Amino acid sequence: MDYEILELGDVRLQRGGTLREAKLAYKTYGELNADKSNAIVYPTWYSGQHYENEWLIGEGMALDPTRYFIVIPNMLGNGISSSPSNTPPPHDRAAFPQVTMYDNVELQHSLVTERFGIERLELVTGWSMGAGQTYQWAVSHPDMVKRILPFCGAAKTSLHNIVFLEGVKAALTADAGFHNGWYDKQPVIGLRAMARVYAGWGFSQQFYREKIYEREPIGCGSLEDFLVGFWEGLFIKRDVNNLLTMLWTWQNADIGDSPGFAGVEEALGAIRALSIVMPAQQDLYFPPEDNEWEVAHMSRAELRVIPGAWGHFAGGGLNPVDTKFIDDALKELLAQEA
Amino acid sequence: MDYEILELGDVRLQRGGTLREAKLAYKTYGELNADKSNAIVYPTWYSGQHYENEWLIGEGMALDPTRYFIVIPNMLGNGISSSPSNTPPPHDRAAFPQVTMYDNVELQHSLVTERFGIERLELVTGWSMGAGQTYQWAVSHPDMVKRILPFCGAAKTSLHNIVFLEGVKAALTADAGFHNGWYDKQPVIGLRAMARVYAGWGFSQQFYREKIYEREPIGCGSLEDFLVGFWEGLFIKRDVNNLLTMLWTWQNADIGDSPGFAGVEEALGAIRALSIVMPAQQDLYFPPEDNEWEVAHMSRAELRVIPGAWGHFAGGGLNPVDTKFIDDALKELLAQEA
Repeated sequence: MDYEILELGDVRLQRGGTLREAKLAYKTYGELNADKSNAIVYPTWYSGQHYENEWLIGEGMALDPTRYFIVIPNMLGNGISSSPSNTPPPHDRAAFPQVTMYDNVELQHSLVTERFGIERLELVTGWSMGAGQTYQWAVSHPDMVKRILPFCGAAKTSLHNIVFLEGVKAALTADAGFHNGWYDKQPVIGLRAMARVYAGWGFSQQFYREKIYEREPIGCGSLEDFLVGFWEGLFIKRDVNNLLTMLWTWQNADIGDSPGFAGVEEALGAIRALSIVMPAQQDLYFPPEDNEWEVAHMSRAELRVIPGAWGHFAGGGLNPVDTKFIDDALKELLAQEA
Repeated sequence: MDYEILELGDVRLQRGGTLREAKLAYKTYGELNADKSNAIVYPTWYSGQHYENEWLIGEGMALDPTRYFIVIPNMLGNGISSSPSNTPPPHDRAAFPQVTMYDNVELQHSLVTERFGIERLELVTGWSMGAGQTYQWAVSHPDMVKRILPFCGAAKTSLHNIVFLEGVKAALTADAGFHNGWYDKQPVIGLRAMARVYAGWGFSQQFYREKIYEREPIGCGSLEDFLVGFWEGLFIKRDVNNLLTMLWTWQNADIGDSPGFAGVEEALGAIRALSIVMPAQQDLYFPPEDNEWEVAHMSRAELRVIPGAWGHFAGGGLNPVDTKFIDDALKELLAQEA
């Protein structure tokens, strides 16, 4: 086990459920300095675990562990933090409660403040649902978060994105082996179906047109090889109830739904962090237009678009060109007085 | 029954199968004139039947039945032309042979020439897979087709579109009730799942962002109402094997795969029809870039993009503004000497 667990006891959730003996799995990189002024939080994305975030951390990069203390908290439902798959009865599997972005960030806040005694964060950043948590951090703890760089994500899940996820969910649960979540083994037909549904969304039309999946760094032999090797491989290692828990979190993500706020516009206006908001030009479910609207409602934010053909997965760490683009922006942001 | 059937006997298919006692269902509008010089062919789209094409036909419109003789042939697999659902054993249901765009057009050619004795077509036009058949007509019978206006479709199905359809297929067949096509009743879980997968693709991000589905002419009460009422309603009335037959035709559509051609570029170059190629600006699976590439390889073609937020369904006849845009182009094209 290459990570640690923070035990949080019973945690009351935003939508009324309770997370019994809540567990937050996390991993840290680098050392917290004496005045605790070098901390960065970098949450995970839909289905991902901490090790799948590590591509953005390294010596010489913005997230340099020789300089910063970087905390990757695992999202609830991702299989190692509290999840349907690891919670004992009666709150296990299909009975796992609904958790929101707000809930995720509250647990992460406990980790950062109680375990480490950190009062200020130099940066929160993340990809996709990690970007959603990044926004949530800036809204829930405006005095604590100095800078944010959400990439390929949104402050509030768009209706189109909700529809895309309805397709994913319908494919996942169409498998009779799903049994409303009370399966004894993973319903793999549903998992493979949802992977194929996802495949068209994850990368752009141009990415497929130019067969970028055949070239390095992906290097698949054919389209079918890519669908099985990359996409089915990404999801068949996950638990279906876990995926549905995170999918619910995603569909219901809205910083404007946080306590004390009357909607997303008000919540965006309350963000005080210095911000670079970074969509990918050809992202099919987090299109730049949505982030553009957000930035217009934020006080210290710049919109900076990742160019190129990789779509949503520009933020997935596979393409060195996109990774450099993100890393350069992170360096620039961290160098600015906030 | 508001349509007619042409019986074609046993028809050998491009990929080696045989369509036994092939049936081509069609409907005509208007009268064929004495010198048979006023015929238009207007094929159907994925899952659609002739009556779902009629929105583009009317007095005062380009496809004016007081002036033209308009033939709507139903695509093979659509439930009334030869299909898995209406073919007797042993070639019924999951044993129905693979049919291509080329096959579809060959049967339509028999209808037009043998039943009606027509030698020249003023126009072939169609939406989506109807656009694919339009291209195929111009390639298979270059001397016969004077003009084409394919809208929201392609000469060859793109890799990205193939991936989108893999998602549709995976959702449709994940239902255990599918039984590899040998179901006794329609696997409705799969049908509803594929409808939800389709929903994100059919309309643009902007369409959902602005909740255009809540306004007339759609006028749904909520997103869920739209997903059930429009999307599930569109597909649950279809037969699953029929949908899979047409999906195969779609995934394998390529005018360059026609006898005598070495690829799509050569086939595009062989089109002699005066052409307006009309993508929708925000179509997520037939993006304008693909048509732009096609037009660059055609000799007498103009690219004209349908503006606005309706995405692929700009060509579906629901939005009066888009319908007028298409109709205006058809009028202009028909008025030109070809």
